[in-house]
Amino acid sequence: MSAQVAIVMGSQSDWPTMQCAAKVLDDLGVSYEARIVSAHRTPDRLHAFGKGVAEEGFQVVIAGAGGAAHLPGMIAALTHLPVLGVPVQSRALSGLDSLLSIVQMPAGVPTGTLAIGEAGATNAGLLAASILALGDDALAGRLQDWRAAQTDKVAQHPKE
Amino acid sequence: MSAQVAIVMGSQSDWPTMQCAAKVLDDLGVSYEARIVSAHRTPDRLHAFGKGVAEEGFQVVIAGAGGAAHLPGMIAALTHLPVLGVPVQSRALSGLDSLLSIVQMPAGVPTGTLAIGEAGATNAGLLAASILALGDDALAGRLQDWRAAQTDKVAQHPKE
Amino acid sequence: MSAQVAIVMGSQSDWPTMQCAAKVLDDLGVSYEARIVSAHRTPDRLHAFGKGVAEEGFQVVIAGAGGAAHLPGMIAALTHLPVLGVPVQSRALSGLDSLLSIVQMPAGVPTGTLAIGEAGATNAGLLAASILALGDDALAGRLQDWRAAQTDKVAQHPKE
Amino acid sequence: MSAQVAIVMGSQSDWPTMQCAAKVLDDLGVSYEARIVSAHRTPDRLHAFGKGVAEEGFQVVIAGAGGAAHLPGMIAALTHLPVLGVPVQSRALSGLDSLLSIVQMPAGVPTGTLAIGEAGATNAGLLAASILALGDDALAGRLQDWRAAQTDKVAQHPKE
Amino acid sequence: MSAQVAIVMGSQSDWPTMQCAAKVLDDLGVSYEARIVSAHRTPDRLHAFGKGVAEEGFQVVIAGAGGAAHLPGMIAALTHLPVLGVPVQSRALSGLDSLLSIVQMPAGVPTGTLAIGEAGATNAGLLAASILALGDDALAGRLQDWRAAQTDKVAQHPKE
Amino acid sequence: MSAQVAIVMGSQSDWPTMQCAAKVLDDLGVSYEARIVSAHRTPDRLHAFGKGVAEEGFQVVIAGAGGAAHLPGMIAALTHLPVLGVPVQSRALSGLDSLLSIVQMPAGVPTGTLAIGEAGATNAGLLAASILALGDDALAGRLQDWRAAQTDKVAQHPKE
Amino acid sequence: MSAQVAIVMGSQSDWPTMQCAAKVLDDLGVSYEARIVSAHRTPDRLHAFGKGVAEEGFQVVIAGAGGAAHLPGMIAALTHLPVLGVPVQSRALSGLDSLLSIVQMPAGVPTGTLAIGEAGATNAGLLAASILALGDDALAGRLQDWRAAQTDKVAQHPKE
Amino acid sequence: MSAQVAIVMGSQSDWPTMQCAAKVLDDLGVSYEARIVSAHRTPDRLHAFGKGVAEEGFQVVIAGAGGAAHLPGMIAALTHLPVLGVPVQSRALSGLDSLLSIVQMPAGVPTGTLAIGEAGATNAGLLAASILALGDDALAGRLQDWRAAQTDKVAQHPKE
Repeated sequence: MSAQVAIVMGSQSDWPTMQCAAKVLDDLGVSYEARIVSAHRTPDRLHAFGKGVAEEGFQVVIAGAGGAAHLPGMIAALTHLPVLGVPVQSRALSGLDSLLSIVQMPAGVPTGTLAIGEAGATNAGLLAASILALGDDALAGRLQDWRAAQTDKVAQHPKE
Repeated sequence: MSAQVAIVMGSQSDWPTMQCAAKVLDDLGVSYEARIVSAHRTPDRLHAFGKGVAEEGFQVVIAGAGGAAHLPGMIAALTHLPVLGVPVQSRALSGLDSLLSIVQMPAGVPTGTLAIGEAGATNAGLLAASILALGDDALAGRLQDWRAAQTDKVAQHPKE
Repeated sequence: MSAQVAIVMGSQSDWPTMQCAAKVLDDLGVSYEARIVSAHRTPDRLHAFGKGVAEEGFQVVIAGAGGAAHLPGMIAALTHLPVLGVPVQSRALSGLDSLLSIVQMPAGVPTGTLAIGEAGATNAGLLAASILALGDDALAGRLQDWRAAQTDKVAQHPKE
Repeated sequence: MSAQVAIVMGSQSDWPTMQCAAKVLDDLGVSYEARIVSAHRTPDRLHAFGKGVAEEGFQVVIAGAGGAAHLPGMIAALTHLPVLGVPVQSRALSGLDSLLSIVQMPAGVPTGTLAIGEAGATNAGLLAASILALGDDALAGRLQDWRAAQTDKVAQHPKE
Repeated sequence: MSAQVAIVMGSQSDWPTMQCAAKVLDDLGVSYEARIVSAHRTPDRLHAFGKGVAEEGFQVVIAGAGGAAHLPGMIAALTHLPVLGVPVQSRALSGLDSLLSIVQMPAGVPTGTLAIGEAGATNAGLLAASILALGDDALAGRLQDWRAAQTDKVAQHPKE
Repeated sequence: MSAQVAIVMGSQSDWPTMQCAAKVLDDLGVSYEARIVSAHRTPDRLHAFGKGVAEEGFQVVIAGAGGAAHLPGMIAALTHLPVLGVPVQSRALSGLDSLLSIVQMPAGVPTGTLAIGEAGATNAGLLAASILALGDDALAGRLQDWRAAQTDKVAQHPKE
Repeated sequence: MSAQVAIVMGSQSDWPTMQCAAKVLDDLGVSYEARIVSAHRTPDRLHAFGKGVAEEGFQVVIAGAGGAAHLPGMIAALTHLPVLGVPVQSRALSGLDSLLSIVQMPAGVPTGTLAIGEAGATNAGLLAASILALGDDALAGRLQDWRAAQTDKVAQHPKE
Repeated sequence: MSAQVAIVMGSQSDWPTMQCAAKVLDDLGVSYEARIVSAHRTPDRLHAFGKGVAEEGFQVVIAGAGGAAHLPGMIAALTHLPVLGVPVQSRALSGLDSLLSIVQMPAGVPTGTLAIGEAGATNAGLLAASILALGDDALAGRLQDWRAAQTDKVAQHPKE
C-alpha cells in the first residue's frame, strides 16, 4: 500500500529543508515517501509522477523547490490531489523568487503555499496532516495533542 | 447541517475578491457559508469562530484579508482544521503586504496560501474542493471534470 | 501594583531583540514586565492578555514578533491601550515581512511601529517612556536627561 | 491654551491624507491644530517647531510626509514628546520609500509609525487618543465607545 | 515545412503582449507560428510540445507567461533548442513575479529572459532573429538594416 | 580563427562567477575567449569590442556584470550578434540591481538574461551552446548527451 | 559659445520628465541644451557625445533614462565632468529599475542620482545650478533667492 | 582657510564606509574635513552645520547615513551648496532603506546620491572632485590622470 503523503523536491540540496516535513509527519504517525523529482532536469519523471500520483495511492503532495520553483505548480497541473508548496530559501534572493514562483498561480490550478524555508516545510507536514485528519479521527486526535503540547511548551516569561 | 466550507473575510470590501471562491464552490457542488470576521474590529468574533469552527461542522476554512492580514493565521492558531489564506490586493503595496502577512507563518501553525487577489480566491475554492474530494468520490469526479473542461477550453492559437 | 509597561513577544527567540526595550526602560526607571505571548501557539493566552491588559494596570504595551507577525496587531484589537510594535528580524526576508505585518494595519486599530530589530526595540522603550512622561514630570526629566546624554556622547570627528 | 495634538505635514498635498487624523480626533473630542512644516523647504520652521512644541503645550505630534520623508524623524530628534509618523503614499514607489524613511530610525530617537496612507492617518489619530486617554478617563470612555461602535458596525455576512 | 520560430503563450490574454514578437519577426521576414500552450491548464500539450518542438522543425522558442510563469522554463526542460522567455506584466505585482519565475532557473536548464511586457516581447523577436541570422546572411543583413533604421529614427533634440 | 563565444566581464572579481560559463563550454567542446571589458572603466575598449566582435568572428557574446550592470546592454547596442547577460551577485542588493540593469532593456536592443550568479553563468554557456548547435549537428548531439547525463544523475530519493 | 548644461535623454518619451530640469534652469538663468542620446539605439552618438562633451564647453551633464537606464553611467564613463542622473518612471516597475541602474555604479565612475521622475528632474536642474554657482556669485544669489521664495510659499496651515 | 569638502556622517560606525571618500580626495589632493553630525542625536549641530557650511568656506558636502537616513537631505535643506549623499549599508534591509531615504527627495531640495556602501563613498569623493575641477584646471588634470590610471589597470583577460 502506498504512503499517504508524497514529499517531493527538486534536488538533494532541498532535503535539509524538506526533512522538516518528514519529521512532523513521523511525529504524527502519517506515512510518507520522499522522492526527488526535478521539474527541470527530469521533466519526464515529473510528468509521470504528476499523472500517476493519485493512482499510486498518495492523498496529498508536498513539493519543495527554490529559485524559479516550478515543481509544485507543475504537479498541481497534473493532478487533482491537494498540492502544498514549500519555497526553499534561495542564495541570491533569499527565497522571494521561490515564494512568488510557487504562490502566484493563475486561477484554475492551486498550490497551497507555506512559508519560506524550514518553517514552511514543517507547516506543510502539519497542513497535510490536518487534511488527512478530516477522514481519520485518530489522526485528528494526535494532531490536536501535538498542537496542545506545542502550546504547553510556551513559557510564561523569557529567560535571559 | 453545517456547510462544508467556511469562507470568511475581514470586511465587506473583500467580498468582490472572495466571491470567486464561492463561485467555484457553487460550480463544484460544495456547500459553503460566507461570513465577515474581522481579526481587528471583531476579535471576540474571531476567537469564537476559530474555537468553534470544527464543532460547527465545517471541514475547511478559506480566509481572505488585506494589508496586515492576520485573519487566516489567527484562525489557524485556533483550529486544527485546514485553513487556506487568500491575500486580498491592498491599495499601496498591491497585496505584497497581504501575502507576506499570511504566508510567512512560524513553524507550528500552517496556512495554505494562494495567489494575491481573485485568482487566489478561485484557487482557494479549488483547493478546498480537492481536499474534500479525498473523502468524496463524486466530488473528485466533478473536480476532474471541471479541470478537464478547463483544459478543453484552451484554444490552440491566439485570436487577434 | 502592576508594572507600567508590558513587554510581550512571540517566543523566547525574540528576547535578544526585545531585551533592548527592557534595558532602556531600566535606564529610565520605568517598571515593566516581560512575557511570552504567542499569537499562534497560545491564542487563548493572547486573547486573555489583550482583554485584561488594561485591567492588570499596564499603561503601554510593547509587542515584538517576526515573520507573519500578528501579535502587536491582535493585542491592539483587544485593548484601547497604546500598543507599540517591534518587527523582529526574520531569517529569509530580514524582517521586511515582520515590518509589513505589523505596520500595515487597517483603519480603526493602530499599532505604533518601530524599526526592524534591536534599534526598534530600544526605540519602543523610549517611546513608551515618552508616553508615560506626559503624566509624570520626573520621568519627563529623566527622559530629557537621557536624550541630552545621548547627544553629548556624539564625538565631533570620526576616529580611525 | 494649546491644542493637545499637533498634526503637521510636509505640504498641502499631504492634507487629503492627514485630514483623516483630524477627522477621528474630532470624533473623539480631542483638540488639535494642523500645520504645514516642511522639513526640506522650511527647515528653520521645522527646527523652531520641534524645539518649541512641548512648550507650546502640545502633548502628541502626528507628522505625515511622503518620499524621502524626514519630517517625523526630525521632529522626534527635537522633542521628547511622542511623535507618530504617517507615510504618505508616494507617486513612483507607492509609499514604500515614505514608510522606510519614517520607520527605520536609529536607536535613540523613536517615531511610532502607522500604515501608508489614509488608514495610517486615521490610526495616528486613534493612537494619539489612546495615549492621551491614559490621563483622561472621559476620553478613555469615548475611545472605548468609538471602538465598540466600530465593532458593532461589522455585518455578519457579506452583501452582494 | 515548419516555421522557424514558435511563439507560445500561456493564454489568450498574453497575446496583446506577445504579438509584439510576431510583429518584429514579420518585419524581419522570419517565419513563426503562434500557439497557446498553458503549462498549468494543458500540461500534456506542454509536454508534447516541448518534446516535439525540435522534431517539428522549429529552431527557436519564444515563450511568454505571467505570474507564476512556468512555461518558458518547462519548455526549456524538454528541449535543447534555445528558449527565450517573456515575463508578461501581472496584475498585482506588475510582472516582478513573472520575471523571477522565468529568469531564476537553476544551473542546467537555461531560459534567455527579456524585459517585462511589450518591450520584452519585441526584444525576444529580435534576439530570435539574431540567433537565426548566424546561419542566414540575408537575415543578418535585414537585421542590421532594421537596427540602422532604428538608429536613424532617433531625433537630435526633443520636441515639445 | 576566432573562438565561437566571447565571455566578457566587467572586472576580475566577476571571474569566479563567469568561469562557470567557461566550464560548461569546455565540457561541450565550444571554443571561447574570456576578456575583461569594463563598461565604466574602459568605455573605449567596450566600444571597440562591441563594434568589432562580429568581425572578429565571434558568434555569441556572454557578458557578466554586477550592480549598475551596463556591459551586456551596451554590447547589445553595438552588435547584432546574440548577447546573453549574466547578473553577478552584488554586495548590498544581492544582484537584484544587476538583474534589473541587464534585463529591463528597452524595445530594440535585446539581452537574453540568465539567473543571478553562478547558475546564470552556467546557463549562459548552455544557451550559447544551444544557439551554436542550430548550425552544428555534432554539438547538438553533445548538448543532448550533456542534458541526458544531467537527467541520469538525479537520484530517485534524497539521501540523509 | 556652448550652453553650460547638457540635458540628455534616451528618447522623446523622456522629455515630459526632463523638461522639469529645463524649466528650473530657465528660472535660474542657466543656459542649457537638450539632446536625445540613446545609449542603446545610438551608441556611436553616445560615445561621441561623452568623449566630446567637455570640449564642447558644457560644464555639467544631466542625463535621464528609464528601465535598464545606462545613459547616465555611460556618459560618466566617458567624461570627467559631473554627471547627474534622473531615473525616469518606468511602466512595469515604476522606476525602481531605472533608479538601481543609475545609482548603483561601481567605484571609480560616479553619477549623482536624483529622485525618480519629475521631482528628480527638477532637482537635477537645481543641483546643476548649485554646482555652477560655486564659480558664479550672481547665480549663487539667484539660487538663494529661488530657495527663499520656495520657503516663503509654504503656507502655515493646510487649506481644505 | 577651510577645507574644500565637508565629509559628514551620522555616527562613528559610518566611518569605515565614509573613509573611502576621504581616501580618494587624498589621492586627488582635495582638502576635506570629516565630522560627525547626527541628524537625530545632534539636531542642533545639524542645524548649525547646515546653515553655516557655506560661510565656513566649504564648497561641497558629502553626507553619509544609514537606515532612515535624513542627514544628506536635511543638510541640503539648509544650504545651497551641492550636497552628495552616500547610503550606508544597513543591517536588516542592506541599505535599501538608506538609499530611498536619501534619493527620493521632493522637488526643490536636491541630494546627488551615490551607490550604497563603499563604492558610493568613493564615488562621492570623485564627484566632489569633478565639481571642484570645474574651477581648478590642475585638479581637472589630476582627476583625468586618476581616471586614466584606473583605465590602464584593467587587465585584458581574467586571471585564474
